[in-house]
Amino acid sequence: MKKNYYIGIDLGGTKISGALSDENGEIISKITIPTKAHEGEIPVLSRIIDAIDSVLNDANKTTSDIKAIGIGSPGPLNAKLGLIVETPNLPFKNFNLVKPIEEKFGVPTYLDNDANVAAIGEFLFGAGKGSENMIFVTVSTGVGGGAIINGKIYRGNTNNALEIGHTTVDRDGPRCNCGNYGCVEALSSGTAIARIATEAIEKGEKTTLKNYEKFSAYEVFIEAENGDKVANKIINNSLNYLGICIANTISYFDPEMVILGGGVSIGHGIVIDTVQAIVKERCFATLSENTKIVLAGLGNDAGVIGAVALAITESK
Amino acid sequence: MKKNYYIGIDLGGTKISGALSDENGEIISKITIPTKAHEGEIPVLSRIIDAIDSVLNDANKTTSDIKAIGIGSPGPLNAKLGLIVETPNLPFKNFNLVKPIEEKFGVPTYLDNDANVAAIGEFLFGAGKGSENMIFVTVSTGVGGGAIINGKIYRGNTNNALEIGHTTVDRDGPRCNCGNYGCVEALSSGTAIARIATEAIEKGEKTTLKNYEKFSAYEVFIEAENGDKVANKIINNSLNYLGICIANTISYFDPEMVILGGGVSIGHGIVIDTVQAIVKERCFATLSENTKIVLAGLGNDAGVIGAVALAITESK
Repeated sequence: MKKNYYIGIDLGGTKISGALSDENGEIISKITIPTKAHEGEIPVLSRIIDAIDSVLNDANKTTSDIKAIGIGSPGPLNAKLGLIVETPNLPFKNFNLVKPIEEKFGVPTYLDNDANVAAIGEFLFGAGKGSENMIFVTVSTGVGGGAIINGKIYRGNTNNALEIGHTTVDRDGPRCNCGNYGCVEALSSGTAIARIATEAIEKGEKTTLKNYEKFSAYEVFIEAENGDKVANKIINNSLNYLGICIANTISYFDPEMVILGGGVSIGHGIVIDTVQAIVKERCFATLSENTKIVLAGLGNDAGVIGAVALAITESK
Repeated sequence: MKKNYYIGIDLGGTKISGALSDENGEIISKITIPTKAHEGEIPVLSRIIDAIDSVLNDANKTTSDIKAIGIGSPGPLNAKLGLIVETPNLPFKNFNLVKPIEEKFGVPTYLDNDANVAAIGEFLFGAGKGSENMIFVTVSTGVGGGAIINGKIYRGNTNNALEIGHTTVDRDGPRCNCGNYGCVEALSSGTAIARIATEAIEKGEKTTLKNYEKFSAYEVFIEAENGDKVANKIINNSLNYLGICIANTISYFDPEMVILGGGVSIGHGIVIDTVQAIVKERCFATLSENTKIVLAGLGNDAGVIGAVALAITESK
């Protein structure tokens, strides 16, 4: 019997999403359950297994219908070994997540980090469909990326390729969580925009920005749209650095396409507009004219569809 | 009969070098003749053909012994089409250099830009031997690069991948020849170092640097070694930006190895020392600890051996 189905798991700090899909990325069944990360490694592993059982039952399928399982997780992790090395919002530490799932279901299982999984998802089923070389860049709480080179995800020597968020775009810029100074993540991520705005409020700058309880980049974008000068300056500066980062990315990879994903990119039209303008300013004309810059095409199910795409490409 | 020999041509603005080599990169015969670029397209093409004839004769070989010919040339060029688009110091403009040579000798001929050819040379016969993913960065009058990904040169969508020299490392930096501001080429190339030093002299800064007739980066390195503060500041600043560029390169590609070539890197030990220190400062530990940073291994014959390596890899 031909195994035509795949299962994708999107493992996050607060929720686990699972989906059973056909080879065209059409979701047959799906589920979302809480991660309850604080309960520790084994309970979270059990819930991943429950999610897989659940999408199998709901789709009226058995493991004999499933060609492969894909899991997307925050990193750092080792895709080759199927190991989650360590990650802030999950209990796993040097934990082999692939082995127990393969043993339980008898189905080849693949693990990769969020950004790579999203890149593969966009490449197979989203905005990157039909391309050969494309870069996916996500801008949300952090900045990350994944590269498809000659039709395959490029992982690098130690599985850490495309650490775009930690490239330096301002030598004397603010300190990043990684310890470096002037990383694009410390200047252009949602977290960075909110931090820079909070600093402006605390300095007493004349602004309509207020330190709400749940203050985020969203409020800064809104106040900028409403004409607040301080908010505008912050947004322009952050997006200028993001543009430099994308221009550099294009100068390195000369890709067919750069796909911008993540809440900050998707939520605010000014992001892609600014990035396109800076790329035009800073890249060779051949590069800027031939690289499409587009928004991610997969919507709310991007995480599970990406995980399905990982399962499909890795089991080929 | 097995064709075991290759010809490499290193085409430069002042000289054309040619070599006939076996499949191990051992040179059997070689020649260097002046380019006489001012004479125009056809005379220069004729001299390339003369160089090929000459290395064949000197090695006592005929075209039936030759599997392929490789040509390295300054860009921009189109490797797929065998076309030199335009280049400052050569007469060729949208000139197909491959076709007339293939027609004349009946041997498959391949063209690529200097930096890619050097990358392939180092990968096959130099410091990169045995690696799968490596980046070659040349620092001389300009800054350029080439990437070997999964054992093959990576050219990108429009044949302009690895425009490392034109990645921005200082948003508000000096204007580059390409029109952008703050490119690493405008801050860290030999030309940039000489220009920044000339500006310091002209501003009347207190320095032992003098505006010699043929003033170059070399003099700035020497005066820095001799303890001149201005020269030291210039060298440190330029190499700091070069270090940032290499750190960014490593964060993108997670390569096994970065190979530094070109006169500026090879000539001055402080270059690789500074780059290694900055990479340690700015990259994730996994990346800095696992990426070797080494000097190019091919000496004076790097150009022709690289062209031979191009011929070997492309004709496989």
